[in-house]
Amino acid sequence: MSSSQPEDFSRIKFRLGDAVYEGIVMPRTLYEDKEHITVKLNNGYNIGLRLDEIEILEVGPPQRQQEVVAEEREIPSQGPRVLILGTGGTISSRVDYRTGAVKPAFTAAQIVDMVPELTRIASISVRTVMNELSENMQPSNWAVMAEEVYRAFEEGFEGVVIAHGTDTMHYSSAALSFAIENPRGPVVFVGLQRSSDRPSSDSATNLLGAVVFASRSGAPGVYVAMHEGLNDDLIAVHSGVRVRKNHTSRRDAFRSVNSRPVASVDVRNMEIHFKNETAKGAGPMRLLNRFSERSAIMKYHPGFSEVLLRTYFNRDVFDAIIVEGTGLGHIARKAFPFVKEFIAGGGFVGMTSQCIWGSVRLTVYETGRDLLSMGVVPLGDMLSEVALVKSMWALGNELDLREVMPRNLRGEISERREVE
Amino acid sequence: MSSSQPEDFSRIKFRLGDAVYEGIVMPRTLYEDKEHITVKLNNGYNIGLRLDEIEILEVGPPQRQQEVVAEEREIPSQGPRVLILGTGGTISSRVDYRTGAVKPAFTAAQIVDMVPELTRIASISVRTVMNELSENMQPSNWAVMAEEVYRAFEEGFEGVVIAHGTDTMHYSSAALSFAIENPRGPVVFVGLQRSSDRPSSDSATNLLGAVVFASRSGAPGVYVAMHEGLNDDLIAVHSGVRVRKNHTSRRDAFRSVNSRPVASVDVRNMEIHFKNETAKGAGPMRLLNRFSERSAIMKYHPGFSEVLLRTYFNRDVFDAIIVEGTGLGHIARKAFPFVKEFIAGGGFVGMTSQCIWGSVRLTVYETGRDLLSMGVVPLGDMLSEVALVKSMWALGNELDLREVMPRNLRGEISERREVE
Repeated sequence: MSSSQPEDFSRIKFRLGDAVYEGIVMPRTLYEDKEHITVKLNNGYNIGLRLDEIEILEVGPPQRQQEVVAEEREIPSQGPRVLILGTGGTISSRVDYRTGAVKPAFTAAQIVDMVPELTRIASISVRTVMNELSENMQPSNWAVMAEEVYRAFEEGFEGVVIAHGTDTMHYSSAALSFAIENPRGPVVFVGLQRSSDRPSSDSATNLLGAVVFASRSGAPGVYVAMHEGLNDDLIAVHSGVRVRKNHTSRRDAFRSVNSRPVASVDVRNMEIHFKNETAKGAGPMRLLNRFSERSAIMKYHPGFSEVLLRTYFNRDVFDAIIVEGTGLGHIARKAFPFVKEFIAGGGFVGMTSQCIWGSVRLTVYETGRDLLSMGVVPLGDMLSEVALVKSMWALGNELDLREVMPRNLRGEISERREVE
Repeated sequence: MSSSQPEDFSRIKFRLGDAVYEGIVMPRTLYEDKEHITVKLNNGYNIGLRLDEIEILEVGPPQRQQEVVAEEREIPSQGPRVLILGTGGTISSRVDYRTGAVKPAFTAAQIVDMVPELTRIASISVRTVMNELSENMQPSNWAVMAEEVYRAFEEGFEGVVIAHGTDTMHYSSAALSFAIENPRGPVVFVGLQRSSDRPSSDSATNLLGAVVFASRSGAPGVYVAMHEGLNDDLIAVHSGVRVRKNHTSRRDAFRSVNSRPVASVDVRNMEIHFKNETAKGAGPMRLLNRFSERSAIMKYHPGFSEVLLRTYFNRDVFDAIIVEGTGLGHIARKAFPFVKEFIAGGGFVGMTSQCIWGSVRLTVYETGRDLLSMGVVPLGDMLSEVALVKSMWALGNELDLREVMPRNLRGEISERREVE
């Protein structure tokens, strides 16, 4: 029954044992040999096959698209209108044969083709708005994404799904949380931890979960939908301002920190199980999508150079510094003069903790009290990444950071305040 | 039965119900009112009491020591000789009445007095070698600690316990892991998450667990001993190069990352349950305690300023930069020219991940392959904090960073190497 390798992205029909299947041939990766192929079946799952175990019955033309351009497509169907925005990243990546590395190449539309169940949940439209690996995403990209989401709701879409690389997805989800006040529906970021052409790809179920939540939750807000655990069927939906990528490669790498996930979507029956409250906004939708780059995270550590202190706490360069302090929110006393001068010059210094979990408290120890007296603002249990994005947003939109940073706007900080 | 408040640190005997107890009056904190006192009982536990519920039978003179000086004390007893080194931090902190904040003030000897069970486990000596809050610890402090540990083994101690503030304890434990090659016995860092004068203080059991492991494990190496969970009786012992403070305030804040804890100590029966292998060194003990400050952690984020890139990748200031990249170990392509020039100038760039869990891999994506081709060295599953300390140590001792950084020396990096 030996067969030769069909061309990548060709649609094939093949026999395995007594059954006949159809699917799309995925490109070989570095990790596969010439005796195997991976086929994306019509049900959305990848299957790894030995070529000599199957009989290829039909081979269609390759489905691959060479170049990604601003692309728009609608797949009319029943159900709520959901827009999938393609931004690049692994969810739309493929292997580069020259280097063996993964490059962004699939279009969002091609991904939808691979997950035909999507059309049974919602009426899907697809727009590719950029094609950027997530490590290259900058605040200017957040502004574009926010505008596209705003436009989608104006056009009458009921939910938006954003396919995004996972590296900086939590920075982008925080950015859109702040940039769109009172979104009319759910905005759900989704990525995958493995490239779409590897056998254990999780894009199909992630994307399904995201579309289910975007179309059926009735919960306006910005979220991240990713695998809840190693189980195939459960997708966790996290608040966009409480989530962090906490593992380099596991597909359940995204975790809610200092908060429970918002919901769990079971993709077997498309049911949503809420686990936490969602932020209820009232009032008209507003777009506030300017971001300043005059802010940075400063992760303090022992032996932290004075040259670095001078660069971070420099009013010519920065308007805000988010310190990732140690423990409850501390830095060495040698940093104090720099902090003091920066604040005296009108700069904002917000304190978070490199511990990640828990809340900063500056009233417990002498060091914290000294920092408070200089005007350092404790940021409770806000993640440093979220605090960075919020400060960039507040600066860009000319808000008063001392007022707005410690105040809860989108669920990013717990209400219980420090006893001062 | 109303009683007036006895003086802080006075030894009192009191009746509660039918029983009579003895202990030391702990100073009031901001969080306590005038109707309560906290007493450190002779068994080492703190108890919060309403003054009108107890009858004070005897009040002794205050046990408080005003000034901490280099102090040495021996408490002769049976069992292995263990040295407790006091360095400052919460484990030897008390409340400052002027500010209400916690300052370092107890001596290590006073703490041992509060935990008399210690003398049943080992023959304890105590030395206060510095009095520094852990957020102020610098590489020069690591050098002193390492020398004191080396000296202790030379003097015939079988184990060393280092009482240390928790904020930067994991940086210090990594530093001593590298600075002492083949220590003759266990070196166990211990801290506590709450100050010693608060009712739920965990110093007693932490210190017990540390002394048990230092005296009875027979496992040379550097460790951190802290509460395993919310249970009072179990103390987790972590490898000094695999541990991280992951919560600002929980007493089980310290967690092993990318590794299981080495052991669990049950302080009810003083038993040690090993859970992981310990590094077995062979050869004579060596002290390599020079640390360079020409290294820094650079946590990359979207919108990372070019001014910062120029400062970090500056050969006039730094010899090594540990990048905390996104995901599998990425940074935006705008950073590439700076990285390239720094490496061309003889600088070392090591890649870790801000995900914390998992391993960097630079062969998967195009960005990673570009970084590899520039000479960036992937540091596997090493924590960024450990990589920083290792680079400071390698620079200080004039080792070849490209050779030594990716190689496992003390269990800080998993042996499985990336397929290149």
